[in-house]
Amino acid sequence: MDPKKTALLIVDMQKEAISDLVKTGVTVISAVQKALQTARKRGVSVVYLVREHRASGIDVEKFRETKFQQHPFLVVGTTGAEVIEELKPLSNELIVSKQRFSGFFQSDLLMLLTRLGIESVVICGIQTPNCIRATAVDALAYDYAVTLLDDAIAAQTPEVHKANLFDMANMGATIQSVDPWIDTLK
Amino acid sequence: MDPKKTALLIVDMQKEAISDLVKTGVTVISAVQKALQTARKRGVSVVYLVREHRASGIDVEKFRETKFQQHPFLVVGTTGAEVIEELKPLSNELIVSKQRFSGFFQSDLLMLLTRLGIESVVICGIQTPNCIRATAVDALAYDYAVTLLDDAIAAQTPEVHKANLFDMANMGATIQSVDPWIDTLK
Repeated sequence: MDPKKTALLIVDMQKEAISDLVKTGVTVISAVQKALQTARKRGVSVVYLVREHRASGIDVEKFRETKFQQHPFLVVGTTGAEVIEELKPLSNELIVSKQRFSGFFQSDLLMLLTRLGIESVVICGIQTPNCIRATAVDALAYDYAVTLLDDAIAAQTPEVHKANLFDMANMGATIQSVDPWIDTLK
Repeated sequence: MDPKKTALLIVDMQKEAISDLVKTGVTVISAVQKALQTARKRGVSVVYLVREHRASGIDVEKFRETKFQQHPFLVVGTTGAEVIEELKPLSNELIVSKQRFSGFFQSDLLMLLTRLGIESVVICGIQTPNCIRATAVDALAYDYAVTLLDDAIAAQTPEVHKANLFDMANMGATIQSVDPWIDTLK
């Protein structure tokens, strides 16, 4: 894998996302850190996908509206919506704001990847069936080579994690752990 | 559910898709027929999503390119790409051509649903983890109410079918069989 044509997508590793919404996210922080540190050293582009909502909740999915009105989450500009300290973005790294599962949905992610000349996206973060999978499906549809770092991605349960990776392998994604992925960088 | 604001999406029920690609599709033909006949009687809009590829294969997903070059499938204009006889579209029904898993991906489906004033989409066809799910995830992201007709949708295996419906319920979709869905039409 050519680092210059590769982007590491770090999905939803935000303070509130891990403390409240997908608590299993804490189990993959060190693996994501390892992928991130390698990306930085080897010249792989780093893109943070972050879910952020306007305080009014107007851009929250319909099925979560009531929940959001009771307990607003990931409100843009709040501490809870920030990327966790362990993975803090550098000033030259890209952050893409998103309001839905897929990082490509009505965001500028595609434009950025195109501009960077990216051919491969390598995905990590939370959580497997929702934001990870929706982002991977769209990346495949746009003809990116997609790698999912299976030990740097978490779901609510191991069963859901496994079933989703099975499906994504069948859609053409490469499922790989962080260490073997690092070995593919040339 | 108000029939005038509802669209039945019939996904990939094409001759070659069922004879070659997702053979379990045959098991849901009668349930899809029942949903279709009800939709026609009750004024629910019907939209057929069909996967069609140019003969050169230029619009086939990268991971299927080799397979397509060896054995072209669902080539636009061929008999194999037609909707099966049991579900043959009426002349006033919409057909949306697509080249990827999601019916919304670079197609005019969203424009059509908007123009029709649709608020609910009801999805049936093949297959659960790929085209059905990608279409459902996008429909949810666009804030449609999404119903999946679980006895009118097939996957390669029951395990994959079940795991995917579980995930989609957690994303806000309603999982319902054809008969109970018919009872909701007002």
